[in-house]
Amino acid sequence: MAYIASLRGRTVPIARRETSIDPRAIRTREALVSATIDLLAAQPANELSVTAIVRAAGVSRQVFYEHFTDRDAVVLAAGRAIFEPAYTEFITTFTPDTTYPEQVTKLFARMGEHGATVRTLLDSAAQGKLNHFAVDMLYGPIRAELEAHLKAANVDVGAGMMDDTAHFLAAGTQEVFARGLSEGTEPDEVARRIEDVRRTLGAFSMGESITD
Amino acid sequence: MAYIASLRGRTVPIARRETSIDPRAIRTREALVSATIDLLAAQPANELSVTAIVRAAGVSRQVFYEHFTDRDAVVLAAGRAIFEPAYTEFITTFTPDTTYPEQVTKLFARMGEHGATVRTLLDSAAQGKLNHFAVDMLYGPIRAELEAHLKAANVDVGAGMMDDTAHFLAAGTQEVFARGLSEGTEPDEVARRIEDVRRTLGAFSMGESITD
Repeated sequence: MAYIASLRGRTVPIARRETSIDPRAIRTREALVSATIDLLAAQPANELSVTAIVRAAGVSRQVFYEHFTDRDAVVLAAGRAIFEPAYTEFITTFTPDTTYPEQVTKLFARMGEHGATVRTLLDSAAQGKLNHFAVDMLYGPIRAELEAHLKAANVDVGAGMMDDTAHFLAAGTQEVFARGLSEGTEPDEVARRIEDVRRTLGAFSMGESITD
Repeated sequence: MAYIASLRGRTVPIARRETSIDPRAIRTREALVSATIDLLAAQPANELSVTAIVRAAGVSRQVFYEHFTDRDAVVLAAGRAIFEPAYTEFITTFTPDTTYPEQVTKLFARMGEHGATVRTLLDSAAQGKLNHFAVDMLYGPIRAELEAHLKAANVDVGAGMMDDTAHFLAAGTQEVFARGLSEGTEPDEVARRIEDVRRTLGAFSMGESITD
């Protein structure tokens, strides 16, 4: 059995062909992931069976287990297949200006294409890993923005302090996003709410400073 | 089968005696949870078997299934048994003053009594639910502090905006806590880091305000 690094910490077992780049293997994996995405729109992850997935994908159980170790592995892959392109686009086009609400609206419109599946995933055992994945994605641009902001304000803090603060802000942002996704909130409403949080945080911190 | 409300969203099935208050049932449940806490100190949750748990607790498989639906249910119960008393003490003694680092140090010293188990749990399928639990616990005192702070600054924001901001801050705080727990960071070091984040956030928000 092969091993890959998990998103955080320990290594996790992977199936023999889970990372194969053979075109036929990729097609089969995509069929399994796509079937899982469709099925999760209508039922909770813990009630989904490998039997139902292979039937919907039109492959044998043997082929399934060449690609995934178990049901939870394909459920996580389904989540990544939805989160990864949406968050990748969000962070690569991220600009800390007045178009931020539009950027958030676009992220949510994209996640909303699989709204029912996303809600199921955020109430499944995969939820923790998907949230970590999202926080890790958001961390990069947030840390860059924080660094630029502190530099402009002539505030010098250590790298570790900047890392911790960026993780704090990324997790806070993802919490508001995840609540919006779980509750099926409209994209522009989530954008308005995260913008309100940013403004409230500004008021919350007024009068405090790193030089206290 | 009985049902209880899950921490968020859908209801989840529970075993017949999972919430029984009969003294013998409580003793058996505690023995199963305690054995699970001990076993998780030495092995990952997904490698833990019901067989190993019942052997360590000295009960039969039949009795196990009267109390828990499956392995994951007792793993989650083990997590709650560690998180709940530690976080309850933290939030009930929470005071937003200069003793905050000491309060955080105390929380981490208490979680550290089961350090190895906590690290296993934060890399298990229970991680998402335990983090949600912690965020929900932190939310109350953080919202109260935010409300008092905004009132003192004469800033008037709506209840929804205050809720969202408190969730953001609670999730950010728990992210820094969870990283400290996962990495086995010393209690006073985590306390210093969360204090640094608070001060960096103050600098980050300098010059912004709710009235912008």
